[in-house]
Amino acid sequence: MAFKLEDIVQQFGGEIVGDRTQQVGSLAPLDQAGPNQLAFLANPKYLSQVETTRAGAVLINANDLAKVTARDGRNFIVTPNPYAYFARIAQAFIDMSTPKPSPGVHASATIDPSATIAASAVIGPNVTIEAGVVIGENVRLDANVFVGRGTSIGAGSRLYPNVAVYHGCKLGERAIVQAGAVIGSDGFGFAPDFVGEGDARTGSWVKIPQVGGVSIGPDVEIGANTTIDRGAMADTIIEECVKIDNLVQIGHNCKVGAYTVIAGCAGIAGSTTIGRHCMIGGAVGIAGHVTLADYVIVTAKSGVSKSLLKPGMYTSAFPAVDHASWNKSAALLRNIDKLRERIKALEASAAANGSGDKA
Amino acid sequence: MAFKLEDIVQQFGGEIVGDRTQQVGSLAPLDQAGPNQLAFLANPKYLSQVETTRAGAVLINANDLAKVTARDGRNFIVTPNPYAYFARIAQAFIDMSTPKPSPGVHASATIDPSATIAASAVIGPNVTIEAGVVIGENVRLDANVFVGRGTSIGAGSRLYPNVAVYHGCKLGERAIVQAGAVIGSDGFGFAPDFVGEGDARTGSWVKIPQVGGVSIGPDVEIGANTTIDRGAMADTIIEECVKIDNLVQIGHNCKVGAYTVIAGCAGIAGSTTIGRHCMIGGAVGIAGHVTLADYVIVTAKSGVSKSLLKPGMYTSAFPAVDHASWNKSAALLRNIDKLRERIKALEASAAANGSGDKA
Amino acid sequence: MAFKLEDIVQQFGGEIVGDRTQQVGSLAPLDQAGPNQLAFLANPKYLSQVETTRAGAVLINANDLAKVTARDGRNFIVTPNPYAYFARIAQAFIDMSTPKPSPGVHASATIDPSATIAASAVIGPNVTIEAGVVIGENVRLDANVFVGRGTSIGAGSRLYPNVAVYHGCKLGERAIVQAGAVIGSDGFGFAPDFVGEGDARTGSWVKIPQVGGVSIGPDVEIGANTTIDRGAMADTIIEECVKIDNLVQIGHNCKVGAYTVIAGCAGIAGSTTIGRHCMIGGAVGIAGHVTLADYVIVTAKSGVSKSLLKPGMYTSAFPAVDHASWNKSAALLRNIDKLRERIKALEASAAANGSGDKA
Repeated sequence: MAFKLEDIVQQFGGEIVGDRTQQVGSLAPLDQAGPNQLAFLANPKYLSQVETTRAGAVLINANDLAKVTARDGRNFIVTPNPYAYFARIAQAFIDMSTPKPSPGVHASATIDPSATIAASAVIGPNVTIEAGVVIGENVRLDANVFVGRGTSIGAGSRLYPNVAVYHGCKLGERAIVQAGAVIGSDGFGFAPDFVGEGDARTGSWVKIPQVGGVSIGPDVEIGANTTIDRGAMADTIIEECVKIDNLVQIGHNCKVGAYTVIAGCAGIAGSTTIGRHCMIGGAVGIAGHVTLADYVIVTAKSGVSKSLLKPGMYTSAFPAVDHASWNKSAALLRNIDKLRERIKALEASAAANGSGDKA
Repeated sequence: MAFKLEDIVQQFGGEIVGDRTQQVGSLAPLDQAGPNQLAFLANPKYLSQVETTRAGAVLINANDLAKVTARDGRNFIVTPNPYAYFARIAQAFIDMSTPKPSPGVHASATIDPSATIAASAVIGPNVTIEAGVVIGENVRLDANVFVGRGTSIGAGSRLYPNVAVYHGCKLGERAIVQAGAVIGSDGFGFAPDFVGEGDARTGSWVKIPQVGGVSIGPDVEIGANTTIDRGAMADTIIEECVKIDNLVQIGHNCKVGAYTVIAGCAGIAGSTTIGRHCMIGGAVGIAGHVTLADYVIVTAKSGVSKSLLKPGMYTSAFPAVDHASWNKSAALLRNIDKLRERIKALEASAAANGSGDKA
Repeated sequence: MAFKLEDIVQQFGGEIVGDRTQQVGSLAPLDQAGPNQLAFLANPKYLSQVETTRAGAVLINANDLAKVTARDGRNFIVTPNPYAYFARIAQAFIDMSTPKPSPGVHASATIDPSATIAASAVIGPNVTIEAGVVIGENVRLDANVFVGRGTSIGAGSRLYPNVAVYHGCKLGERAIVQAGAVIGSDGFGFAPDFVGEGDARTGSWVKIPQVGGVSIGPDVEIGANTTIDRGAMADTIIEECVKIDNLVQIGHNCKVGAYTVIAGCAGIAGSTTIGRHCMIGGAVGIAGHVTLADYVIVTAKSGVSKSLLKPGMYTSAFPAVDHASWNKSAALLRNIDKLRERIKALEASAAANGSGDKA
């Protein structure tokens, strides 16, 4: 497998500086690439490697190329975003080298006759598709995927093994859902129906039916074992190009704005709205019924209990330090009001002395 | 589908004020409901909406009804807890409008001949039921559910797709287990069997067999991808009407008291006992071998490292603030002992001066 | 089922003090054991129970045995590590009493003809095994397990129901993977390809293909619903005898050193290296691209944002205290810089007065 640079730019854009007929067949880092490989410069601090690389061609932006002195015999594809270019071409190379399963429904799958499945879709072993489901063109459902009644899966989507999408949900085009993710599970809502106090309390929690769905825009990726609850009345909404990592929990009736990324182990309680282009760090917790503006960044391990209505970076996490020092600081924090009292007393005494001085 | 108010109160209780023959067919919020719909007032701050609603009837408590002046032509069902009443009737409406699968075992399921399955149970595609399992009346097991040998599932329970319940466990009646939850996985226990220190250390971790089970009371709900480990010797215990959200981890030999609710992403380490009627917030972490009294509330993102033996609300989480301010506070906290030293020095100096004054 | 002590020591080591022909058939705690049961003393604080136990024999170390005065008629197996000995013998007892499934492939499994499956392996219902997979001797794959193309599973491994191992991964010998775990899901990597700011921003996230695998050493245990991402280029690596609890997230290209244990709900971001013999507490979060030395302990709920290059214990978590006290301390922490200003002012004033005194 080898492609001329001129064929690559025809498909992916960019401009060639050097030999248009140079062929490359795979990708490699600048310092490891050989003459048949394509490398990329995403970070200017590696510029010196461009001067010495043996790569057949280098993806580079115009600014960085201007700084390259040893261009003789080197070939470049000039593009404003070499890293994104690399990602796209790498995906294309993988697609070409990966065996493609034949379209069709595996004999062991259980398909309701009222479901609509595009002829180009690949439905794997033990998949269950309930009544009224719509599966778009080129969708791929891996082993044991479950799709509940009335749910639709947009064209070009890939659901990895053991994904469960409940009834009444909608996945946009080109969704990628990693293994074990659950979409459309019941939101966590119960009406307290108790009388009496303490040991005399009787009654129970009454489940609030969750009759909304989950509505997911195009180009969304959802991580392994992540859970997204269905709405209570209206839908939980994930807008286009949202990227969600593994083991993330998104509560009922949340709305996550387009292009927002959410790192692993984050949890977002119900009815919270997150803006567009936000970045939610790993293991962040966000309370229910709050709003985050567009372009909010919450750093890893922080907790959000109130709305954050201005763009910017927010934090509430401490980095670990040695255990003994931490315990000392923590004990002082617990008694910080006593420090304040001591400062107050000193101020009062100083003021008294000060008055005395003036007298 | 439409029901007279008098038929509704016959089934669900409450007293009618207004036209007993008024019919309603669905539920809606006060400000959106039409003449064939039932609305409810759970929060007195929306009382003014009761005066203007077009709803066919309103669920309301007696106190709030007393404040309603525009009752003419309006109908009410008076009940002490309109929200719980709403939840119950909503569930009934949903049950009536949801297609019911026929009882029986799907052809693709794998059932050990020694298992006992009630005739009214619905066993879905690719379900695996091992030896000696007992499945109660009206149980519904969705696609790919696994039930290990000797486990029993109480009547009226619903296990969503891809749930795994290991061997030797017991689920009470009316359990709801959302997709991907795991019940009865091995607890995390290993005996260190090492000799030597540092690079010279040899040996290994020896797995402690986990031979207890998981015992779950009636009316328990377990969230998607939540995990509940089996006990090492005795059972892990979840008492009646406990409600557990998604992605919660409950370690081996924990005991969770009745009516306690645990929000998403919480983790409870092994051998911990949580009382009745507790509320554990999202992403809370609770250490192993501690005890929480009845009626303990732990707010979201807090960590519990010691027993909390009195009812009440406990916290150790900070809300996120802007990153720069946080970093300044965090740095000062790290050096809070130096602030204390400076206060001490000032106090010593003031005392010395003070003595001088008195002399 | 009953075994003579002399037969037990022949298999498991240790020395008998007492009657070599004493028979035991099961295990029990010291205070509950009967004459046909084996008990163990792991913690010297229970030494007095050894004096009174009715156990047929007691596992004990030589030091503790020297302190036992009432040895008459009692039997002991002396071993340096009674707890590990107990664990091993308990496992053997369980193995003997647990029904063993017959080797072979369940009729409902879907096996690619190019896969290699050892004759002694047990392949359960609805298992999917793709092309080129290698399944070692005595491997057991429970219901609905998925193994992607080219992946190998080491001899003696057990994968519980609904485990998914993607393509191109390698599990060592004697792996134990609890239900619902996902190994080899795509790492979380996207190249930003946006132009413009604020509302005018256009573009998208471009997925970075994840073409590395996951390489797991022998004797590793992985908890229920835990996720381990595949590497972007090179493999994610889990070394021998690493023990990972439930709901843990391990990002792409992490390396976890041998014998390290990671408790439940911990999350480790991508490209982080954790040393050997580390202990990562529950719900710990570790940032990406950092390094932890061998023998690092991070206490539960702590966050690690920088490398920890020395062995030792690290912490950044606060224990929950009553809500009102916490809020007071938290408010003071938020304004701790003002306390510092007040101290500064007092110091300046004291210095001024001090000069005055000296004058």
